[in-house]
Amino acid sequence: MVSKRAAELAADTPAIAVAHLAAEADPYHPERNPGGYLNLGTAENRLVWDLLEPRVAAARRVRPEDVRYAPLYGTAALREAAAPLLAATWRSPVDPENLVVVSGATAALDIIASVLCDPGDALVVPAPYYGALPLDLCGRSGARLLPAPLSAADGFRLDPGAVDRALAEARAEGLTARAVVLTSPCNPTGNVHPPAVLRACLEVAERHGVDVIADEIYANSVYGPDTFTSLLDPRVREGGTVRVHTVWGFAKDFGLSGLKAGVLHTEDPEVLAAARALAYFAPVSTDTQALLSALLADGPWAADFLDRNRDRLARSYRHAADTLAAHGVGHVPASGGFSIWTDLRPWLAGGGFGAEHALWQRIWERTRVNLLPGQVFGSPEPGWFRICHTTDPAVVRDALTRLGRLLESVGAPSRPAGAGRATHPPRP
Amino acid sequence: MVSKRAAELAADTPAIAVAHLAAEADPYHPERNPGGYLNLGTAENRLVWDLLEPRVAAARRVRPEDVRYAPLYGTAALREAAAPLLAATWRSPVDPENLVVVSGATAALDIIASVLCDPGDALVVPAPYYGALPLDLCGRSGARLLPAPLSAADGFRLDPGAVDRALAEARAEGLTARAVVLTSPCNPTGNVHPPAVLRACLEVAERHGVDVIADEIYANSVYGPDTFTSLLDPRVREGGTVRVHTVWGFAKDFGLSGLKAGVLHTEDPEVLAAARALAYFAPVSTDTQALLSALLADGPWAADFLDRNRDRLARSYRHAADTLAAHGVGHVPASGGFSIWTDLRPWLAGGGFGAEHALWQRIWERTRVNLLPGQVFGSPEPGWFRICHTTDPAVVRDALTRLGRLLESVGAPSRPAGAGRATHPPRP
Repeated sequence: MVSKRAAELAADTPAIAVAHLAAEADPYHPERNPGGYLNLGTAENRLVWDLLEPRVAAARRVRPEDVRYAPLYGTAALREAAAPLLAATWRSPVDPENLVVVSGATAALDIIASVLCDPGDALVVPAPYYGALPLDLCGRSGARLLPAPLSAADGFRLDPGAVDRALAEARAEGLTARAVVLTSPCNPTGNVHPPAVLRACLEVAERHGVDVIADEIYANSVYGPDTFTSLLDPRVREGGTVRVHTVWGFAKDFGLSGLKAGVLHTEDPEVLAAARALAYFAPVSTDTQALLSALLADGPWAADFLDRNRDRLARSYRHAADTLAAHGVGHVPASGGFSIWTDLRPWLAGGGFGAEHALWQRIWERTRVNLLPGQVFGSPEPGWFRICHTTDPAVVRDALTRLGRLLESVGAPSRPAGAGRATHPPRP
Repeated sequence: MVSKRAAELAADTPAIAVAHLAAEADPYHPERNPGGYLNLGTAENRLVWDLLEPRVAAARRVRPEDVRYAPLYGTAALREAAAPLLAATWRSPVDPENLVVVSGATAALDIIASVLCDPGDALVVPAPYYGALPLDLCGRSGARLLPAPLSAADGFRLDPGAVDRALAEARAEGLTARAVVLTSPCNPTGNVHPPAVLRACLEVAERHGVDVIADEIYANSVYGPDTFTSLLDPRVREGGTVRVHTVWGFAKDFGLSGLKAGVLHTEDPEVLAAARALAYFAPVSTDTQALLSALLADGPWAADFLDRNRDRLARSYRHAADTLAAHGVGHVPASGGFSIWTDLRPWLAGGGFGAEHALWQRIWERTRVNLLPGQVFGSPEPGWFRICHTTDPAVVRDALTRLGRLLESVGAPSRPAGAGRATHPPRP
């Protein structure tokens, strides 16, 4: 027998983790394993290993204190090295004392949700959202997630009105909402949000008396055409008083997803104290913190790395988008992140998420390509799939070709008249 | 405003963490900083850095997968490398699939408590116990800790009767106890428990229908004369059916306290599944796991390291015990761990924990030596202090000399007739 909470968690393994592990256990290779899985389901950046290897494999200047007890909310060295980078990213001064380093962005999300929410309190999240967000935010805190559905017709752009409606509904249902969770760039859509929209969201939050959690773990993975603006940007905050708590990490922008180093930033002393107390349960290895400090402390290296990463992401996105377009598959134009929010609505046989699941299964079985169906991301309507394009380019090329051929061969049962071109053709 | 649980946690910073950080911020050095603090308050093993440095500072064979997503309950490589060591330590076969690797023994304790306990459920813990144990076990799980006081007259030896009484009292109070938490070697006393006593404790647990959590993080830090026996040892379990969940880590036996790598072992499938689900929130850097895998996979190195560590611990203990004895200070004879449970009862001016605190403060102010008062460890009676002897030997020598001189100078206000010799003279 186990506790109620533990039993719920154990029953709730995120679909994307299961698909990731299944696909990774038997990975496709054009020559060595042509019968393996082609995993486009995992938002992992595999385009930068050549830039990282010389750094992470090198001999390390390790001092005794690098293997000893240190503050459990992050070493001073790492927080001081991260502050200037984050200040440049957010265009806002960053005090290293306001940073809490924990074992991954998941831990950072868990901690801020647990700090803000007692069990039963609500968090409003525009949908579609990162598939593991409900688990990260609610799994341990006992909070509940209320989606604010965005509109497909509008390319799922962030809509302050949708956030406002979700907060109003929460109140009408007698729920206590504590925060709005905004992700930029958005995973899965790749949308980045303009300052005016972010400002309007802060105003909505302020009017409802709730905080804002900013998930900006892809902040340095924006390749344009739209440019990234942080919720901490002075142009966004403009004298407002709403508390903004920001999550960042090394998994995405630095391609170091295994290192499980997440960062929470907050300027509120009470939230900071509580977050530090919770960080005690999810600290990061001092050895890894020493490695990360050394990377960031070498400012020119880090700046060059991030530039080259953005270039490679842009190329990778362009290639994947062009391949999809060549097969007549549309998507939401992305400006950042690792994924393409792909419109397979024309190929749904029937309505509802049952049809979406059937299409997903058909793709998986017929092509051995792993993409993730929109339901995983709380998509407001069926037929959207997330395709990650940042793995080995040969795998992406072969997977999208297989996918395109399958879709061409089965035709588009529900394709409306005039369709055949991309729903949201990729920008030139 | 923050959540109720977060506010409680933020208010509950463990005293040993505060003292550690204060003392470490201004550390004593015989020449360079003679006015600094002499920290004997932290159970950290600083005797083995020369053995570790060549390994942790060397260039690393890092593969791409060492910085990528991996199972969040530990890489297969680390679990497979740890299994033989743990099997030898526990004298019991270990399936790597039954190991859950998380970010420190604290996280492992939090996870097993959260898996077993819903809020309000109880855990029985013999006292004195590790000072942060209430926070580790109850801070996030919402469990409550019920002490089973051990007897000073008996050198605080583990007493199955005390455990039985605590479980019976829990039931009488209408509490649902879920487990007994047993630590061997005991921190703070350094006691290791013989097989018959452990077996009797398992029988008590079985009779009450509760699990056992075995905290064996010092298992390879036993230098004798008593020898370590795990709760997983077949001589202890002897066909009993009580579930035993064991915690181990790299902080103590390998002197790698900063690396925050803890291990939970359980053979119960339901507990295992729930623990894996919770490990999602506190994973360990794959980079650090690769380092630890390499250490353990080199079996001869690891065996030699552990042997030399035990030798150094024995010498360090002997030196500290002799110094205390030379000043007429008694203690519980230890067989393992990093600390000496020191009997300063004769120097208490008055009764109760108020007098203990006053003595602690006097020592801190007059000698700048940081030791921790027994109240921190849930000591059943006042006057006992934990002294850690595994830091720089020069600091230990100077600190204990200062302490001894202070105690000699103030005399022993409450010393009974015939006192003056050690209460528990160190074994020869």
